[in-house]
Amino acid sequence: MRKSLLLLLFCAGIQLCLFSQNSILVFQSDFGLKDGAVSAMKGVAMGVSPQLKIFDLTHEIPAFNIWEAAYRLQQTAQYWPVGTVFVSVVDPGVGSERKSVVLKTKSGHFFVTPDNGTLTLIAQHLGIDSVREIDEVKNRLKNSNASYTFHGRDVYAYTGARLASGTIRFDEVGGVLPAQVVTIDFQQPVFENGVVKGNIPILDIQYGNVWTNIDKETFNKLEPKYGDKLNVQIFHNQKLVYKGVLPYETTFSGVPNGKPLCYLNSLLNVSFALNQGNFSRVNKIFSGPDWSVTISK
Amino acid sequence: MRKSLLLLLFCAGIQLCLFSQNSILVFQSDFGLKDGAVSAMKGVAMGVSPQLKIFDLTHEIPAFNIWEAAYRLQQTAQYWPVGTVFVSVVDPGVGSERKSVVLKTKSGHFFVTPDNGTLTLIAQHLGIDSVREIDEVKNRLKNSNASYTFHGRDVYAYTGARLASGTIRFDEVGGVLPAQVVTIDFQQPVFENGVVKGNIPILDIQYGNVWTNIDKETFNKLEPKYGDKLNVQIFHNQKLVYKGVLPYETTFSGVPNGKPLCYLNSLLNVSFALNQGNFSRVNKIFSGPDWSVTISK
Amino acid sequence: MRKSLLLLLFCAGIQLCLFSQNSILVFQSDFGLKDGAVSAMKGVAMGVSPQLKIFDLTHEIPAFNIWEAAYRLQQTAQYWPVGTVFVSVVDPGVGSERKSVVLKTKSGHFFVTPDNGTLTLIAQHLGIDSVREIDEVKNRLKNSNASYTFHGRDVYAYTGARLASGTIRFDEVGGVLPAQVVTIDFQQPVFENGVVKGNIPILDIQYGNVWTNIDKETFNKLEPKYGDKLNVQIFHNQKLVYKGVLPYETTFSGVPNGKPLCYLNSLLNVSFALNQGNFSRVNKIFSGPDWSVTISK
Repeated sequence: MRKSLLLLLFCAGIQLCLFSQNSILVFQSDFGLKDGAVSAMKGVAMGVSPQLKIFDLTHEIPAFNIWEAAYRLQQTAQYWPVGTVFVSVVDPGVGSERKSVVLKTKSGHFFVTPDNGTLTLIAQHLGIDSVREIDEVKNRLKNSNASYTFHGRDVYAYTGARLASGTIRFDEVGGVLPAQVVTIDFQQPVFENGVVKGNIPILDIQYGNVWTNIDKETFNKLEPKYGDKLNVQIFHNQKLVYKGVLPYETTFSGVPNGKPLCYLNSLLNVSFALNQGNFSRVNKIFSGPDWSVTISK
Repeated sequence: MRKSLLLLLFCAGIQLCLFSQNSILVFQSDFGLKDGAVSAMKGVAMGVSPQLKIFDLTHEIPAFNIWEAAYRLQQTAQYWPVGTVFVSVVDPGVGSERKSVVLKTKSGHFFVTPDNGTLTLIAQHLGIDSVREIDEVKNRLKNSNASYTFHGRDVYAYTGARLASGTIRFDEVGGVLPAQVVTIDFQQPVFENGVVKGNIPILDIQYGNVWTNIDKETFNKLEPKYGDKLNVQIFHNQKLVYKGVLPYETTFSGVPNGKPLCYLNSLLNVSFALNQGNFSRVNKIFSGPDWSVTISK
Repeated sequence: MRKSLLLLLFCAGIQLCLFSQNSILVFQSDFGLKDGAVSAMKGVAMGVSPQLKIFDLTHEIPAFNIWEAAYRLQQTAQYWPVGTVFVSVVDPGVGSERKSVVLKTKSGHFFVTPDNGTLTLIAQHLGIDSVREIDEVKNRLKNSNASYTFHGRDVYAYTGARLASGTIRFDEVGGVLPAQVVTIDFQQPVFENGVVKGNIPILDIQYGNVWTNIDKETFNKLEPKYGDKLNVQIFHNQKLVYKGVLPYETTFSGVPNGKPLCYLNSLLNVSFALNQGNFSRVNKIFSGPDWSVTISK
């Protein structure tokens, strides 16, 4: 009997170790890193379970920029293991009627966030398995009821930590909602009449490269070959602001320094760059739902 | 006997796992993240014990700004589990006569830092259990004696890591000092003659909100109700620099975009904001021990 | 037999715990923290092994600045435990003919990087044990073949994670190369004719202090004593741009605020600073292979 107890204890120990291996929690916000907000969220998470493995996506989303929050999630979530829980807090309507939700995608990732458009791209790319509204009575940091303004810490970080650590199951988050999320409109990638169209969701900001949402499959309908010269037009609110002929290259060094090129970025989306230069700054091209591009041979 | 040995080994294994769960070490500094200073501190900590769970509060404290270092600790420490060790290195007097200390608060948190005012607010809010001076002969990275300038890595990170990992007990840090810390003067929160007074310790810098040190209890002596119009005055070095009438709201969206409001922030302190705007920048209000406010009905 | 099995299982459990203790992976890049690139690298690493302990050196290397990448590695690697794996991605020639390598130093640290000069200072200071070229057929994130532009995530992060976690041994990285790396020229620290010469590899950027590569041993040939006045000259491309007489001090507070001093920094290299001021900005002194200094009594 003593041996059985030992075995039981031992298995519990191993499981404790193994269990902790999947407790991955990734934070995103527009809080910046200059104050203590991010640290307070992580402290709350550690208080829920010290087994959590905590990471940052970014905290440098421009203040209240829901579109960019949506893009950063879509850019990176697929590279994290199945089961990873993301907490994204870009919340201009804090305290207003937007719902606090957890999205489970068909890929098996979880997203804890205000449902304000942040889930636009993730829902489209990874698919909606189900959406639950956070029950803020059960899933709220103890003794935080009197505060109405830091949902990031008291509700989102706390709920994300409980979910990631297995303290609660997904169905304990709160009631099921219809399988849909609030979305933002933008130009979808399409091929029609020999022209590929798409949106500029984001800049590769550190280098000034321009990234489109045109995936490789859509682009391939143009039957591009490396070295081909492509006609590129960029529009802001339907107004033409850039026109150029860019070679399609596999690497930046395929063109001389300072020259433009068209390439597939790390997400396999069509992108524009200057080799060792800043395409965005030089050509005054920015990003968001109001930017679009066309490409033809 | 073999079974006993096995049990002993097993328990050691479990304890190793369990023990590591509380080995939380949180760093703060004015080093920024552009060079290798923070990384060197973490490397030293990992060398002490790879079981440590290492986090950042912030490394963007403005250079030599002890007041802001004090505020960031006070803002966040309470959200971390009991037993967490904070290492804060904002040290304009490095190498001068300030003492290197570890404060244990009544809440059971630990703070490793030069005693130069950094502990002003933590000592007041969490209470002083005891203070020890770091014995730099025993608690100093091996082979670092010839260097006199990086206490952050060789003394503070090293001692914090040893304490957090259980390599040393608190009483092995060094000799006991009187239960007091070096403090900076500022307007304490008070209610007198129908007026609440307080200090602006910090800005909510990412959004430009103005945070005071007036806690909910002091504020409630004014008997404010949501929707009440409050007379707010802000002073810099006793000179009036802002005067306004602000509604007391539970959420930012309680007023139109761009309009001011008074609210309780995530620390339950009185704060001023513009809904989706920057109160600080628009009204040129900053923070520090030389800023004060009055609020009346 | 049941007991033996138990023992076996138990040892496996303990080893699992112990093994994970050395799985330290440190990232450096010029990606910044505003987008999802760093997060994607970490997600890939977690997918390789959730036992990894992941840290950042810095991601604020100026875009394409190989020299600064080289310096940051050399500044910090020695403070991390033996066996630590560094992944450094500053790669202006991505896709061109530079090799992707892993350097094992004589100190037992590992560096995963494009061999483009990034290893210049590490190779000199920690010594080359051996260099292997990454076999990108075996050591490349599955399903990433169609993308040619994010080596940081698909090859370097992936290979670094596999090496740090023990998924592959060093000899499984790829074929052995000659024991040498691509290097950048600069003024080595020397003492000749009563004059010490050296380079300014980097600024202590947060404070504006000027750091040289002149180590304590070379400096000591000048037989400096604390308090000595030293003649300091600084050159940019061989042209004199600064000349001053600086006291040699153990601490910044050895001189009045705003006054210059000469001191040994945390790496025990000769450095110049203004006490609570910014030597670099005031005197327009910067860093890189084209900056040099002379010091004499």
